[in-house]
Parts: sequence; C-alpha cells; structure tokens
Amino acid sequence: MSDRKFTVAVVGATGAVGTEMIRVLEKRKFPVGTLRAFATSNSAGTTVQFNGVPVTVEDVATTDFKGIDIALFAGGEIASGTYAPRARDAGAVVIDNSSTFRMDPEVPLVVPEVNPHDLKKHKGLIANPNCSTIQMVVALKPLHDKVGIDRVVVSTYQSVSGTGKAAMDELLEQAKAYVSDQKPSNKVYPHRILFNCLPQIGPFRDDGYSEEESKMILEPRKIMGDPNLKITATTVRVPVLVGHSEAVNVTTREKLSAKDARDLLRQAPGVEVVDEPGQSKYPMPIHAAGEDSVFVGRIREDVSQERGLEMWIVSDNLRKGAALNAVQIAEKLVEMQLV
Amino acid sequence: MSDRKFTVAVVGATGAVGTEMIRVLEKRKFPVGTLRAFATSNSAGTTVQFNGVPVTVEDVATTDFKGIDIALFAGGEIASGTYAPRARDAGAVVIDNSSTFRMDPEVPLVVPEVNPHDLKKHKGLIANPNCSTIQMVVALKPLHDKVGIDRVVVSTYQSVSGTGKAAMDELLEQAKAYVSDQKPSNKVYPHRILFNCLPQIGPFRDDGYSEEESKMILEPRKIMGDPNLKITATTVRVPVLVGHSEAVNVTTREKLSAKDARDLLRQAPGVEVVDEPGQSKYPMPIHAAGEDSVFVGRIREDVSQERGLEMWIVSDNLRKGAALNAVQIAEKLVEMQLV
Repeated sequence: MSDRKFTVAVVGATGAVGTEMIRVLEKRKFPVGTLRAFATSNSAGTTVQFNGVPVTVEDVATTDFKGIDIALFAGGEIASGTYAPRARDAGAVVIDNSSTFRMDPEVPLVVPEVNPHDLKKHKGLIANPNCSTIQMVVALKPLHDKVGIDRVVVSTYQSVSGTGKAAMDELLEQAKAYVSDQKPSNKVYPHRILFNCLPQIGPFRDDGYSEEESKMILEPRKIMGDPNLKITATTVRVPVLVGHSEAVNVTTREKLSAKDARDLLRQAPGVEVVDEPGQSKYPMPIHAAGEDSVFVGRIREDVSQERGLEMWIVSDNLRKGAALNAVQIAEKLVEMQLV
Repeated sequence: MSDRKFTVAVVGATGAVGTEMIRVLEKRKFPVGTLRAFATSNSAGTTVQFNGVPVTVEDVATTDFKGIDIALFAGGEIASGTYAPRARDAGAVVIDNSSTFRMDPEVPLVVPEVNPHDLKKHKGLIANPNCSTIQMVVALKPLHDKVGIDRVVVSTYQSVSGTGKAAMDELLEQAKAYVSDQKPSNKVYPHRILFNCLPQIGPFRDDGYSEEESKMILEPRKIMGDPNLKITATTVRVPVLVGHSEAVNVTTREKLSAKDARDLLRQAPGVEVVDEPGQSKYPMPIHAAGEDSVFVGRIREDVSQERGLEMWIVSDNLRKGAALNAVQIAEKLVEMQLV
C-alpha cells in the first residue's frame, strides 16, 4: 500500500447521502489528505465535521475544482449534470450518485463486488447505481455466475430516506400529528406516507413503468454485463425511515436448491445471510439501518416454476445503496491505481 | 324477493372482523330478523350495537345454536374448529372466516364474484377465503376467463388489522412511543412493526413458505377451479392500519394488452380501476380502507416476458377481505334459495 493521501470532495455534503459519505470515509479510514465539502449557496458557509475537525462548506456554483483527486457527487441530477463534468475536466475522478450518467456507454456503472473490472475503462467519471439496484445485484451476482439468471420479478418496499431528509422529517411529522389526533399534512409526497403504501417512485414512462422501476430493469444488465437479463419491477414507497426491502423472484437457467443458494450467498462478498424464519430471523429494515451488508433471507425454491428461487433482500439504502458503494468504488480505484 | 327474515349469528362479534360483519349486515340491509352475538366468556355479557339496538353477547362455549339460520364465524381457528360443526349440526348454515375448512373438498370456498355456483354443493358449511386471496382472485378472474392465466408472482404489503385489533393498538402505541423518544415495545409481533417490514405472516412450512403464502398459492386454485394455476407468493406485514396491497405479476396464456386488461377490469364485478399514475392516481390502503371495492391500478404490460401483466391491487382486508365477502356469500345463499 502506498502512503498517498487524496484530496476528496463531497458535493451535496449536507444532504442525507453526502452526510453519510463523510461518515463512511471516516469509518473506513479512506486515505483523505484534505476533505472539501460542497453544497448549494443555501448551505455554503456552514460547517460539516470530518474526523472531529470542522470543514467549511463551499458554494458549488462558484468553486474551482482544481487540485481535487476524487469528487463524490451526492447532490442530485441537476448538480451532477452541471458540475460533475466541470470537476472531471479540472482533473478529478468523479464518482456520481445521480442517475444522470448511469446508462452512458462511456461511463462505468459499478458495484465493487460485481464488476470492479469495469473501472479500468473509466474516463474520469464513474456512476454509482440506484440504491435498489445495488442491493439486488450484490445478491444476484453469485447466483448468476453459478447457474445463470434468466428472469427476475422484483417488488420493493423502499424507505423514505431514499427521497431525502425532508421525506424522513415528513414521515415523523405525520406520525406526531396522527398520534395527537391532528391531520397529517404532506408536501414531499403526493399523498400521506404514514400508515400507507405509495406505488410511485419517480415519474412514469409511457409504458406505465416508473423511473425507479426502469432503473431496476436497465441498470443490472449493464452492471452484470448481461444485456439479455429479463427484469420487471414494481417499486413502492413504504413508511420506513431507513432501509430498502425487496421481494425477489428469480428464474434460473439451471436448477439451484435453496440450500446451495444459501451456501453460495454465505460466501458472497458484501452479503450476510439471515435465514432462520422459524426463529423469526430474517432481514428487516430496522436491523439493516446503519449496517454495511446486504442481508438476504427467506431463501426458498419457487413452487411455481421448475428452476426458480424466492428471496428477501434488505440493505441500508443510504449506506450500501449510496454512500458506502461510492466510497468502495474510490477504494477500488486506489487499489487498482486508477486515480 | 321473499320477505323472509333470518336469524343471523356472528361468532367473534367483538373482534375486528366480527365488528365489521355487524356493520356490513346493517349497511347492506341484510334481512336480519334476529341478530345473535357470540364471543368467548371474556366478552360475554357485554353488548354490541345492531341498528341502534344493544345486543347482549352470549358465551359461545355454553350456547345452544338451535334456531340460527346463518352463522358467520369470525372467532379464529380454534372457535371455528370447535363450534362451527356444532352450529351446522344444529341447523345453521355456517360461513366461516377461518382457514380451518378452506381446503376441505367437502367445503365450498367462495368469492361471490368468482365462483357463486360452488355454493350449490354446500353441506351446511362454506369457507370464506383468506383476505389476501380474495382481493387477488377478484382481479384475476376476468383475466383468467379471457386469456387464461398460467403463473402468478405476488408480493404483499399487508396491514396489521389482518392480525386483529391488538396489532392495530400495538402499531399506534409504538408510534406514540417513538415520537416521544421512548422505546417502542412489542408483544403481538416478534419485532417492532412501526417503520419496519416483517416478511413473516404465520408460521413457516418446511419448504420455507409461510402459512399465509401457502394460502395464497392453494386457495386461488380451488376458487378459480383451476388446479394447474401456478402461484408463488411473498407475504409481508407493513406498518399500515387497514388495507392490504399486492404487487401482482401475471403470465397469461394469450397476449393481453394493458388497455384491454384495463377495459376488462373496469367491467368486472367488485373491481374499481384507479389507474392514472401520471396524476398520482393509483390504489392505496388509506383510500381503500372503509370501501367495498377491490382497487386495481398500475396496470402495464410486463417488459420481461412475451405475455404478461403487472398490477397493483389494494382492498380493505376487513371489508372485502373478510366481513363483506362473508355477508355477500349469505346474500347469494338467500338469492339462490340455498338457506
């Protein structure tokens, strides 16, 4: 290992994912020489803490990206579209959490457990996949390698933190209002989320799929390097603060027993199998929140088809679904000497 | 129509489903001559209201069922196993909401919109299907009749009222505790349900499926009269008070467009299509609660297979999923002169 230290920028440093990125950089002792924090003018001038030291937040609109080695972008589509190319052109390797560049054939879309080799092709910009996609492909990859996956039907149970801090506040405010016999109000979502399920994540396409569903259908093909992978998805927002859950039905090309699938997943990087349903042990968002792993349980052979499995996959959408995966990409870049 | 009035018993009259049954009998003006209410000795002696008149709750253990025409059972497995045969032997036609007799070949399992003809074979006992099953088959039936259904993959988002009143109280108590910075406690469920998802409904079988999942796999075959129907299910409890939601993926034998499916479902009895996702109009538990219909939306052609549809089905699990369906069975029995 070299002793090289990196100047790392976090763009969107005060948001739900940006905050988590700083925490993950600390926790994993990423070789940060200098941390720079960026946000919109609203937050510029405030400070964020990094290893106990206050870092002043800079205005992303007026900043000069020169001297930055790695820029982690977590400021949403508009910030990424505007500033990520600027940061790259100034010499930084950009790891972007937005969907802006994910399907660009020039941009690697990487989950380090699945396709680290794609990093070699980077041209200064690497995309971090969608949160729901990441946790699914981490669990699907070992099965795909072993027996081949033909088709996936996934239904999601996604937490409000995927929308951001304002949505978490809205859910908590609605709970407070409800238990005080007041009418909960809503602003972030088109309907009340407390004690409800919203089958809408993002705008809808003409074919009736939502943007989130479309991401779950397209991104795994690119990450797993298999353009023939057939996927359909229904993505649903549920009243959970942190942690996305997924009911995943898989059609495999060769038969795989539940036991063999469990054994494979136990050895898979980034996966933790929690599968003793008889003891009420299965993955759940309240246990996954704050953890790094992708938790897999309820693994069983699908009784409705000859070669199929059912699984229940849960992970912290801010952690592995966003901040952790981005930092792991940065670690791989360092390890592979690509930065 | 005859002017005949019926002596109707509700067993489990003080529980979540029993209470709803009495409300539905009132609302639909079922020809009740006398209403009798039964519960365990704990509730015996208390009163329930029927059309504004108090009815004293009788102890089911010491009761004589003579003179009862129709007995609606909503007291759970043990009450049904013990007392339903006794009520039938005393001359009542029993409509049983528990799972005890559902798969008994001698017992019709009926959803009036789907298989009213099966009532003709009744021998004094008719089973009301599982709540999640009812709402699904009401929506699947018109599609099955038109193009044939080969396989179904369903993931559920089930409300706590399916467990009963104690579970609703537990969710509300947990919300109160959480917003007051106290630790929520749990008794009804093995884990906290507030801001969480529990992928467990009922005990687990050796093959890894839960009892609720098994019901959703087996019951539709009997109701729809198609032993070849292939179904797999993942059933999940979510922090919702009333109303079950289902993401349903269907493989059809012949191709059906989303538009044609929508048109078929618009004409289907018991179904209300809510499908303008671009205007954020789709079925949701907070809208379905207290309503009679099965709401269907997010209807789209499945991009992952040649002949398939995706749908989102929501209904009030206490209403169409239990009490309403039972009363509709009673209405059909009267109409078909089978009581």
